[in-house]
Amino acid sequence: MEWAAMGAVDFENFVHELASVSGQAILPFFRTALGVEDKSRGAVFDPVTAADRAAEQAMRTLIRRTFPSHGVRGEEFADESPDADYVWVLDPIDGTKSFIAGMPAWGTLIGLTHEDHPVYGMMHQPFIGERFYGDGAQARYRGPAGDRRLGVRACPALEEAVLMTTSPLLMGEADRALYVEVEKRARLPRYGGDCYAYCMVAAGHVDLVIETNLNEYDILPLIPIVEGAGGLVTNWEGTGDLSGGRVIAAGDRRVLEAALKVLQGG
Amino acid sequence: MEWAAMGAVDFENFVHELASVSGQAILPFFRTALGVEDKSRGAVFDPVTAADRAAEQAMRTLIRRTFPSHGVRGEEFADESPDADYVWVLDPIDGTKSFIAGMPAWGTLIGLTHEDHPVYGMMHQPFIGERFYGDGAQARYRGPAGDRRLGVRACPALEEAVLMTTSPLLMGEADRALYVEVEKRARLPRYGGDCYAYCMVAAGHVDLVIETNLNEYDILPLIPIVEGAGGLVTNWEGTGDLSGGRVIAAGDRRVLEAALKVLQGG
Repeated sequence: MEWAAMGAVDFENFVHELASVSGQAILPFFRTALGVEDKSRGAVFDPVTAADRAAEQAMRTLIRRTFPSHGVRGEEFADESPDADYVWVLDPIDGTKSFIAGMPAWGTLIGLTHEDHPVYGMMHQPFIGERFYGDGAQARYRGPAGDRRLGVRACPALEEAVLMTTSPLLMGEADRALYVEVEKRARLPRYGGDCYAYCMVAAGHVDLVIETNLNEYDILPLIPIVEGAGGLVTNWEGTGDLSGGRVIAAGDRRVLEAALKVLQGG
Repeated sequence: MEWAAMGAVDFENFVHELASVSGQAILPFFRTALGVEDKSRGAVFDPVTAADRAAEQAMRTLIRRTFPSHGVRGEEFADESPDADYVWVLDPIDGTKSFIAGMPAWGTLIGLTHEDHPVYGMMHQPFIGERFYGDGAQARYRGPAGDRRLGVRACPALEEAVLMTTSPLLMGEADRALYVEVEKRARLPRYGGDCYAYCMVAAGHVDLVIETNLNEYDILPLIPIVEGAGGLVTNWEGTGDLSGGRVIAAGDRRVLEAALKVLQGG
């Protein structure tokens, strides 16, 4: 990463600040009954959308003030300078279904791309108070489990793999059939997780994540974290083009290749 | 609950102390790579079992010292005085698959029965630092979301329900077919969660939990929490006998009855 391009700004501190302001914007809406209460009064109020918009707005303001030449792409508002050299990719609440159910397996994704290549990413869970972040060369954790480097673990074979996917129900029928073949061979398949699944690969607790239909803002911010921890993220063809939405992440190249062989139908 | 039977002991403080000692015993094993490292040296070491046993041992020691006439039943060790008037029911790590994957959706269950009837229960998540507890008449929360009473929310119909189950794959075929009929009608079905799903009913974020093949220590400690928050826990026949393992929990009697009608095949 060309740190020089960031000028006098302490870049890592800046991303932590983005995480903090988004967390402050989101938390008042988590595990509240606001939605239900307002509904009974006839108003339409969706706490997830409200939290999403408040957090994205807060992050955009801070980015615009600090890096006026940078672009921003997020889920809730129109793109700003999407052709700039540096573009921020924001997903304030990745895992909205968990959020709705009061479960803590959601996170805020903050990514930075340089000429369309992801160069920095952070996943922040403000309720638990933990952050996973990386720049593709290294990755770190800060939270209740301490302050430490992240590193993937060895996993030589599918039969030893802990495998995560948010839900097989999100896949099309043909993709699901291929996925199920991998699942049958894995040691422990586990559903749910969204962005957490990728961070658990980076932290060395999960060996494989296999998903489909991802948006770019769901996956780009996670790539520098997984790769910084020594892992790999590709599409199901095994190449770097992630625009198609079929994504696989792994901590060990051997288990990645074994899974790709199955996903490619043979 | 006959508080008099507890003598001079501050009962609620005692259960919080049980939660604290079990949390201290478990946390060193969560998100560690100990299992993997030891495996590479040829030793067989399972961090979940080690954490389970350390936590249950710590709780049993404290119970024996404070209430020598009480019985104890747990997952890891032999029953102690299981015919005593008061029997503690312990499950140090409910949600072991989440634990293994590094995900925070597991919890420590601490229950007390009086003449086989659950009279007090606590779910403690030591990594997040939150506790849900109740005595059947009321229920409370303490954690990052504050210190407050728990209360279920209204949900008049299946079509409005957020539904949780740990995984449909855990159900036998006939039960799964009935479950799927409920899932089809629910507003938002969500997998995973284990003990968290019941606490989210108590907290008013989830409307229904439907599961099968539960052990008594998986569900007894959660009943006084759900009921204390105004919710209901029954078997699929709608009666109080939970020894058969098919359990349904709901925040609103209307959605409970609608689901039971489907689960009873009609």
